[in-house]
Amino acid sequence: MPKVRVHNVTVSLDGFMAGPNQRLDAPFGDGVGWGDELHAWFVGAMEDLAAGKGGTDVEYFARGDRNIGATIMGRNMFGPQRGAWEDESWQGWWGDNPPYHHDVFVHTHHPRPTLEMAGGTTFHFTDESPDQVLGRAFAAADGKDVRIGGGAATIRQYLSAGLIDELHLAVAPMLIGRGERLLDDLGAGIDGYRVSELVGSSTVTHAVLVRR
Amino acid sequence: MPKVRVHNVTVSLDGFMAGPNQRLDAPFGDGVGWGDELHAWFVGAMEDLAAGKGGTDVEYFARGDRNIGATIMGRNMFGPQRGAWEDESWQGWWGDNPPYHHDVFVHTHHPRPTLEMAGGTTFHFTDESPDQVLGRAFAAADGKDVRIGGGAATIRQYLSAGLIDELHLAVAPMLIGRGERLLDDLGAGIDGYRVSELVGSSTVTHAVLVRR
Ligand SMILES: NC(=O)c1ccc[n+]([C@@H]2O[C@H](COP(=O)([O-])OP(=O)(O)OC[C@H]3O[C@@H](n4cnc5c(N)ncnc54)[C@H](OP(=O)(O)O)[C@@H]3O)[C@@H](O)[C@H]2O)c1
Ligand SMILES: NC(=O)c1ccc[n+]([C@@H]2O[C@H](COP(=O)([O-])OP(=O)(O)OC[C@H]3O[C@@H](n4cnc5c(N)ncnc54)[C@H](OP(=O)(O)O)[C@@H]3O)[C@@H](O)[C@H]2O)c1
Repeated sequence: MPKVRVHNVTVSLDGFMAGPNQRLDAPFGDGVGWGDELHAWFVGAMEDLAAGKGGTDVEYFARGDRNIGATIMGRNMFGPQRGAWEDESWQGWWGDNPPYHHDVFVHTHHPRPTLEMAGGTTFHFTDESPDQVLGRAFAAADGKDVRIGGGAATIRQYLSAGLIDELHLAVAPMLIGRGERLLDDLGAGIDGYRVSELVGSSTVTHAVLVRR
Repeated sequence: MPKVRVHNVTVSLDGFMAGPNQRLDAPFGDGVGWGDELHAWFVGAMEDLAAGKGGTDVEYFARGDRNIGATIMGRNMFGPQRGAWEDESWQGWWGDNPPYHHDVFVHTHHPRPTLEMAGGTTFHFTDESPDQVLGRAFAAADGKDVRIGGGAATIRQYLSAGLIDELHLAVAPMLIGRGERLLDDLGAGIDGYRVSELVGSSTVTHAVLVRR
């Protein structure tokens, strides 16, 4: 059975994936810069992987891309705009050839036309429910697994509904204090999960949640 | 200068020190038993220390007792009663000879007479502010450090006010989902702290917060 997986989500020690006031010049919100303390391990793992090096961070990092046939994300992860789109020139944070190379479903209350990018990435914008979107994503993945990319609000919806099979997160040695907390407000959904791995590397602690 | 320290506070991966509905037969609230997943590392470290064994958990555990001259705790950590004391027969969770052997200040809106126990532990009950209680605790500690024992509400007050110098916590591989979260609602207080250590053992991840 294909799975629903989440990988390489980085949270601060106090549990936040992003600070408040996310915007174009601060995609992770106040107090969190790309590549700084929160994502240093991630950038390091990307570089080590490219250089052919191994290690705990590289192993967890590389798991995330294996056997993924489609991605689901929230609209705030796709871009900094909120509310109705002023125009449709924004094509995501990832340039002309995004690193997905498969169908990507973007949850939004403001659907817009499908966007075909170079390299096989196609962004679909949808106001359907997680259940419905997951059905389309499994069809697009054609037997492979579906990855939920983020952000916090989107992962929380899928966790609350018990739709996620495996969630890998990295706890980074920093405090954010306020913003988007990952493991929060999950209701009874959280009771369906347990921690199957907790492994410290020299930079972060990796944890994996699976179903009980 | 003597310090204000917190040690061996265990939180679940989602940040809780205790579940909801703490009571006599469930001191850590719903879903958390003494010695189970949350505190397994703590019990193991106590046993290893007694047996003369070492290791990461034992090292962090043993730091907590070094150079402490007085302890401060919240009333919910002292016992399961809430509101006015029905009678004063409750003398804490720790038996006739509590493992403190120094003055212990218990924050409560319902002060009661001082309680002198065997082995040098004296419980003082006080409705003074954290600042005032800390003054008394430093005087009692006579040059040694003061330890804040818990629970979450009490540690949060001292953290918010920037009164803590060093906080060691252990993140355990379990989820609690609801209850008393440690690093929450700290306002600007949290911005005064950074993570100075993040070290995985085979059972938990140890983290230390210090002032920026
Ligand atoms: N730390 C990490 O590893 C990591 C990883 C990924 C992302 N991030 C960060 O996380 C942040 C984004 O996370 P977030 O929690 O703010 O938001 P998000 O989950 O990316 O997006 C939430 C938005 O998506 C739309 N949406 C979600 N579910 C929907 C549904 N069922 N139906 C219709 N629309 C729905 C809504 O937007 P509308 O109502 O406006 O359409 C909602 O406000 C960014 O700062 C990103 O950089 C961090
Ligand atoms: N996981 C761990 O390592 C660990 C460690 C220690 C404790 N715990 C657990 O934590 C739980 C207790 O934590 P908690 O957060 O519920 O409570 P707590 O901090 O122990 O006690 C809070 C109570 O103390 C009194 N209080 C606190 N500050 C005060 C002030 N400034 N003035 C007057 N009274 C004040 C109030 O009681 P009144 O108004 O009723 O007087 C308040 O409700 C227990 O379940 C305990 O087992 C866990």
